[in-house]
Amino acid sequence: MKIALIGAGNVAHHLAVELEGAGHDIITVYSRKLPNAEALSDRLSIAVATNELNFAESEAELFLLTTSDDALEKIIPQIVWPEEALVVHTAGAKSLTVLQNLLRVHSDVPLRTGVFYPLQSINKKIPLNWKEVPICIEGADEEIEHQLIEIARTISDEVYLVNSEERLQLHLAAVLANNFPNHLWALTKDLLAEHNLDFELMKPILKETLRKALDADHPAEVQTGPARRGDQTTMARHLQLLEDQPELARIYQTISESIMRWYL
Amino acid sequence: MKIALIGAGNVAHHLAVELEGAGHDIITVYSRKLPNAEALSDRLSIAVATNELNFAESEAELFLLTTSDDALEKIIPQIVWPEEALVVHTAGAKSLTVLQNLLRVHSDVPLRTGVFYPLQSINKKIPLNWKEVPICIEGADEEIEHQLIEIARTISDEVYLVNSEERLQLHLAAVLANNFPNHLWALTKDLLAEHNLDFELMKPILKETLRKALDADHPAEVQTGPARRGDQTTMARHLQLLEDQPELARIYQTISESIMRWYL
Repeated sequence: MKIALIGAGNVAHHLAVELEGAGHDIITVYSRKLPNAEALSDRLSIAVATNELNFAESEAELFLLTTSDDALEKIIPQIVWPEEALVVHTAGAKSLTVLQNLLRVHSDVPLRTGVFYPLQSINKKIPLNWKEVPICIEGADEEIEHQLIEIARTISDEVYLVNSEERLQLHLAAVLANNFPNHLWALTKDLLAEHNLDFELMKPILKETLRKALDADHPAEVQTGPARRGDQTTMARHLQLLEDQPELARIYQTISESIMRWYL
Repeated sequence: MKIALIGAGNVAHHLAVELEGAGHDIITVYSRKLPNAEALSDRLSIAVATNELNFAESEAELFLLTTSDDALEKIIPQIVWPEEALVVHTAGAKSLTVLQNLLRVHSDVPLRTGVFYPLQSINKKIPLNWKEVPICIEGADEEIEHQLIEIARTISDEVYLVNSEERLQLHLAAVLANNFPNHLWALTKDLLAEHNLDFELMKPILKETLRKALDADHPAEVQTGPARRGDQTTMARHLQLLEDQPELARIYQTISESIMRWYL
């Protein structure tokens, strides 16, 4: 399948290399800044870099919109599409309808639409095992869905049909389970550093806890800590340590209360 | 070294088996409930189970108090010690002074005191690689510290001298970085289940995020998500999904605000 990438960021980098490795032809890479498009096309065999958005004569059958959510709304009005092109975005928190409405307003030709959302935190500098990345597919009709599933299966063993509402739930879940713990680790590293203690010390317990949480039938089974036990003395002592850090104290209280409501 | 264990819970189980494997003699296991003490002594070669607290004639040189923080204050007044025994607790949030004060009030003989705190979430059913578990040592004097470090080194490669204040900071850090993320995973699993979505889908991203956070110089370097980008539209959409879940919405807002303050 001939594919054009709109956007040359983290997701585009990984997807392009992986799709090409699976036998697809990435023929065009667009970025507003040409050097960014070139940086990616240089890693591909036949792709041409461009910073122009007139694709009327393009031979691409699939257009992958990999830009950020906000950029999507700015870029779509500028694109000229070939007729019947399959236009797909990769965003977790954007519905298929949003894409369709934008295209309805801003395109003169009939288009086919879908979503190709990899449920993974993707950084172009860090290698990724795509076989394990869940890819969430949605299409305007069954034929499109079938086509996108086939493409997704060439790079991942975990392909799912997920509608826009479900995808937004998954996106929220990723924020709660993924972005928030990462921030708690960042806060903890700084807290320890203030007392000349090394975050290194926490690594074994963090690895072990994730392993246990994922191995258990439910992460709740392996919950430990003072809030889990309702140990008010220890919680009060911790909050004392956070006296000068109202923000961290608020997080401590909010989550501890939630734990106590769950278990006690 | 001849060791007696006071308490037969998760920490005692793991420590006893590991210390015996390293050549120490666990001669006594105490639990208030004799069958609990027996369950552990059955896994050891010469240990005798008991539910009595008169150790005046005991040959143990080291007494490891592995009970919960609260139990410590109830059990110490009942114990009769042999003279000069080394009495050590394994708790993160209890200072050495608390132990010393309890013993001063409740013991007639001179005792030696210390702390032997494994920085790990320990469950007797789940195997543990002790070599990687940081063990935090504190002693009433240098000789005791030296002795406890030697014992700790027989089971772990990560042995540190940590005073009571630092230990409490580490304990708080473990709550923030370890207990709280686990609770976020539990909340997420239930949220997904309400929409018939499988927590399985989240496993690749969770593993990947921890790996990235621990490999980076600072977890902040790999922070992603709508709060990191200041993407108010997506955050508003997420909060809409949490309309009927005020508790989860409060967590969402509290941590998102903290992320925005950090990055924006």
